[in-house]
Amino acid sequence: MLTNRQTIRIEWGDCDPAGIVYFPRYFEFFDACTRALFERAGLFKRDMLKTYGIAGIPVVDMKARFMIPSRFGDDVVVESEISKCGKSSFVVRHRLMKDDGMAMAIECFETRVWVAHPNGDAEKFEARSIPDEVKKKFGRDAETQPAE
Amino acid sequence: MLTNRQTIRIEWGDCDPAGIVYFPRYFEFFDACTRALFERAGLFKRDMLKTYGIAGIPVVDMKARFMIPSRFGDDVVVESEISKCGKSSFVVRHRLMKDDGMAMAIECFETRVWVAHPNGDAEKFEARSIPDEVKKKFGRDAETQPAE
Amino acid sequence: MLTNRQTIRIEWGDCDPAGIVYFPRYFEFFDACTRALFERAGLFKRDMLKTYGIAGIPVVDMKARFMIPSRFGDDVVVESEISKCGKSSFVVRHRLMKDDGMAMAIECFETRVWVAHPNGDAEKFEARSIPDEVKKKFGRDAETQPAE
Amino acid sequence: MLTNRQTIRIEWGDCDPAGIVYFPRYFEFFDACTRALFERAGLFKRDMLKTYGIAGIPVVDMKARFMIPSRFGDDVVVESEISKCGKSSFVVRHRLMKDDGMAMAIECFETRVWVAHPNGDAEKFEARSIPDEVKKKFGRDAETQPAE
Repeated sequence: MLTNRQTIRIEWGDCDPAGIVYFPRYFEFFDACTRALFERAGLFKRDMLKTYGIAGIPVVDMKARFMIPSRFGDDVVVESEISKCGKSSFVVRHRLMKDDGMAMAIECFETRVWVAHPNGDAEKFEARSIPDEVKKKFGRDAETQPAE
Repeated sequence: MLTNRQTIRIEWGDCDPAGIVYFPRYFEFFDACTRALFERAGLFKRDMLKTYGIAGIPVVDMKARFMIPSRFGDDVVVESEISKCGKSSFVVRHRLMKDDGMAMAIECFETRVWVAHPNGDAEKFEARSIPDEVKKKFGRDAETQPAE
Repeated sequence: MLTNRQTIRIEWGDCDPAGIVYFPRYFEFFDACTRALFERAGLFKRDMLKTYGIAGIPVVDMKARFMIPSRFGDDVVVESEISKCGKSSFVVRHRLMKDDGMAMAIECFETRVWVAHPNGDAEKFEARSIPDEVKKKFGRDAETQPAE
Repeated sequence: MLTNRQTIRIEWGDCDPAGIVYFPRYFEFFDACTRALFERAGLFKRDMLKTYGIAGIPVVDMKARFMIPSRFGDDVVVESEISKCGKSSFVVRHRLMKDDGMAMAIECFETRVWVAHPNGDAEKFEARSIPDEVKKKFGRDAETQPAE
């Protein structure tokens, strides 16, 4: 399945008065890592929205375990992969690694759905089938592993 | 158990190019709602850190389901409650409600730990027992329901 | 001229490792205060975009002086007013007050422009004349004070 | 004087419902660029706070002009430099460039102060003289150009 590694520098503004990353920031990092994972497969979000006529790939389920905190100035590595793919949804697994990849600080599973605006109504979202060519880019096992 | 309701106005800057809330913002909302829940019990974070000599109550586990999106200009209500409390950790359940409380848009469970800096070492965190007087403020069943 | 006062609770997540508000957050506060200022005049952003066919009121110039820091748990008051209004731009002045309004912690001037997408091209923005009925809501002197 | 160039990818979560960067995010970018500028001179914030016994280098004045918007997926370049340096304060000039450096989209001047906690009182901040060795790293003209 599709994988990617991304190095992230923890900034001063990512951290709270305890000196560690304010946890909602991690979800911003992971969102950017999903974007980077897609680019690894040649899928650029801006083009993808146009090409496939979709409104986005919103997160519908999120699970995360936070095991080791990170501090400003730390360089961490996020390993992302498509861990499951169903008809219209898929799961991205992110592992935030520290100490040169020796320690897993966070593990996160985000489930996303391929959605469009039904009849062009920008106020509504409707699940759509993930196109076969996208699934192919996700990797050979993508079609056989249901997300739910 | 302790509960609280908080109305939140969705701001322009909370929303993404699809016009809906960028999901990491929800976790900022929920963090503020946990703060408000504690204040409902007379526990103000700034005082609490000093009184109990703790470094914070960091999130160690987070689960969320996103069912209905919200848009800028929406007023949503978050209902928060301590749903479990163990020796040194507790779970806060947040439900983000729309349409005058008729629809649950998001359900989130965040597990937090009561931590201190061991031997005053600001780089380390160590779980501590939640004081009895804090548990009492959480509600009568707090002591009998283990968080893990 | 139109004015508004808004109380803001400084959250844990607004603050940095020095324990004070991370300065970009203030601009999020001020943006929400401009939104609230407009609502004071009956102008709700979501309706306003539709009614007047505009794409937004983006900031084109920003000046701020930070005199006193704020900490998590602080309740601050932001006083906002339309300080100037020209043909297609206007200036909002925000003053963030502490200690029951006795101390001005921040003063900020943001210049915004009334813009639309020319020929419906969502990639472009073009300044438009602020409608007279909007200027009237800004206050009696609005028309005679050029923004630049 | 000290200069640095930093490429920034505009993320989905940096953008608002108009599809362009929500302006407070730019100040987060610029803060990270000032951090990177310092590292260019061998000054790492975490070490710097300890070595010089300072609490930080908070922004006391900010001026920005926003000329061209940016969209998610854009790669922009920020050119940062110490433009002035006085006894205890200095000015960083950031220019956000687009189209391979052909167009200046934003120009920003941030004035920062070198501060410490007086008598170890973490609630207070006091300006201190910028050490000569830091000024030397800023560049040869640093000492002769007052920030105010």
